[in-house]
Amino acid sequence: MPVVDVHTHIYPSVYTELLRSRDKVPYIRSFPDAPTAGDRLVILPAEDTASTSRGRPIGSEYYDIRQKIAFKDANEIDISVISLANPWLDWLPPNEAAEVAKKVNDDVERMCEEYPKRLYAFGTLPLSASANDVVAEIERLSTMKHMRGVIIGTAGLGGTGLDDPKLDPIYAALERTGQTVFLHPRWGLPGEVWGPRASEYGHVLPLALGFPHETTIAVSRMLLSGVWDRFQDLNVLIAHSGGTLPFLAGRIESCVAHDAHLKHGGKLERRRDLWDVLKKNIYLDAVIYSEVGLKAAIDASGADRVMFGTDHPFFPPLDTGETEWLSVRLNTRAVQTALGDDQKTVEDVMGGNAVRILKL
Amino acid sequence: MPVVDVHTHIYPSVYTELLRSRDKVPYIRSFPDAPTAGDRLVILPAEDTASTSRGRPIGSEYYDIRQKIAFKDANEIDISVISLANPWLDWLPPNEAAEVAKKVNDDVERMCEEYPKRLYAFGTLPLSASANDVVAEIERLSTMKHMRGVIIGTAGLGGTGLDDPKLDPIYAALERTGQTVFLHPRWGLPGEVWGPRASEYGHVLPLALGFPHETTIAVSRMLLSGVWDRFQDLNVLIAHSGGTLPFLAGRIESCVAHDAHLKHGGKLERRRDLWDVLKKNIYLDAVIYSEVGLKAAIDASGADRVMFGTDHPFFPPLDTGETEWLSVRLNTRAVQTALGDDQKTVEDVMGGNAVRILKL
Repeated sequence: MPVVDVHTHIYPSVYTELLRSRDKVPYIRSFPDAPTAGDRLVILPAEDTASTSRGRPIGSEYYDIRQKIAFKDANEIDISVISLANPWLDWLPPNEAAEVAKKVNDDVERMCEEYPKRLYAFGTLPLSASANDVVAEIERLSTMKHMRGVIIGTAGLGGTGLDDPKLDPIYAALERTGQTVFLHPRWGLPGEVWGPRASEYGHVLPLALGFPHETTIAVSRMLLSGVWDRFQDLNVLIAHSGGTLPFLAGRIESCVAHDAHLKHGGKLERRRDLWDVLKKNIYLDAVIYSEVGLKAAIDASGADRVMFGTDHPFFPPLDTGETEWLSVRLNTRAVQTALGDDQKTVEDVMGGNAVRILKL
Repeated sequence: MPVVDVHTHIYPSVYTELLRSRDKVPYIRSFPDAPTAGDRLVILPAEDTASTSRGRPIGSEYYDIRQKIAFKDANEIDISVISLANPWLDWLPPNEAAEVAKKVNDDVERMCEEYPKRLYAFGTLPLSASANDVVAEIERLSTMKHMRGVIIGTAGLGGTGLDDPKLDPIYAALERTGQTVFLHPRWGLPGEVWGPRASEYGHVLPLALGFPHETTIAVSRMLLSGVWDRFQDLNVLIAHSGGTLPFLAGRIESCVAHDAHLKHGGKLERRRDLWDVLKKNIYLDAVIYSEVGLKAAIDASGADRVMFGTDHPFFPPLDTGETEWLSVRLNTRAVQTALGDDQKTVEDVMGGNAVRILKL
């Protein structure tokens, strides 16, 4: 059984060129006040301050597909389902977004062509354009040989969130064409929540907590707005093992059951509950770095719905030159220790589930 | 083996009288625009808007200890470790806080005297006063017969958080007197994260997600600031099964291990990791409403460190008149299903651990 990585990012050159041509967030460039730091990718306004830790370093591992292949070989990964990462295309002027999306998706499709049976992809949507443009790109993606779904952030159309009813034609198109949505955090949480000493803790708090909390909020909003009541066949792969959903699903359902406003409004009477959605519509990656978390993910969604991932090229080894990555090892070990002697299920989570679910 | 509830709140009358005498947040009163809604407790500025859902209804179950006893009898709970709930005393003028804390703690101690072997308590600290005043109250609490520790929110001294080094004398006093800290969320998250349709979802998002996320952030800040390196015997019972810590501990440790800033700063070289702290300094309540969450809590901290709780008088049944509470049943059932046939461990989590840890 092949090992499949469903959470692995690439910035194709058409996209990095666009970011290099810009002088405000999001953008890529080097800084005169930190000349040795190389090119930096600055995604968020809060990262855009003058210091050597402005944004994050971006080297060829972000855009050169050969480096992805070398990483896979060194870390024993057979197949990768690549996707564009933050900040995708939702910041583009609406009249440019549809064209750029086509170019990005064509570029990614070409990479997959170049490495047959080793690469598949999630496409990118022009979410700053109209719902019609987005639906057209979903339909185009469904005809492309290596595309297996789409990656989206939590912003929705113009920042109004994934619980906006304006997304219904988009959800309908994804459901109709059988494409999986890879849902990935973008913003984290407002900076004030990290407190006055946050800078002493590096990027730990926003990355470790902001991302999964953002994801949990976004999916809970989808659930409460009835997305899965209206689209019962919409399948969503949630990054980072669901944010914190497996752990908090019980509390979410209890809060719904005890809410006088919801009860008296009658809105949620016929609603599907989160446990049902977790087992029928939600897939989870295995990017959780611990046996405890992975067990909870499997308990929540089922061992047949959890799929190995790496988050490459993020979280590289701090000692340059290491080719086997600690971040990969932590996730592989979590699968092995959580499932013990059940080698068949280890193989399912490491690749078999992805082959079946994404038809690789 | 008795059933022990370690997470159960009371607002003693000295405290409710204080809130009734006020006309701005936090306060208790009825509203002319909603005369049938009865008395409402308004804790947060965001709750203080004119509607029938302003704040929350507050009846005698919030302050009459006889109602707590009746609830316990109806729900088969033998011993309760009661504590003041939101918003504690940190909003008081500094020159009043120490006196009010004494009155509140004396009032709670009297309740415990009244029901021997059925009530113990976590005391309240005057966190708007000076660290000296707080330490004095900690020492006084340690001499009181039914006090078993203190409850605190996430604000710290004057809102600077639990990672403020100014808290060190307070942590030292708690460690020295062997008192357990019951750490409980207060604020949730900034309202903007719930999005433009939040009001359609009742109180679900802030309660179900805001509270545990706030807790997770607070404890992570304590960890990263080295609180448990300096106070290796400081014991903290974390509300709601640790917020989301059991699920995210792996991601937190991975983010630390991959952070160039922390590595090159050298600050965290000798740091204790979160798994070690979870197993030696952290206790978790079992207020998580699901088997999946409870298993993760036990996997993270150990079955000898998790203790049953109810969050009474919050989350009452929506059908008035029901004396057996759904919220209690969900948590009891989670313990039973998570531990299956291991009746000894079920009894430990339901009460034995609390008896041993809190010396009841």
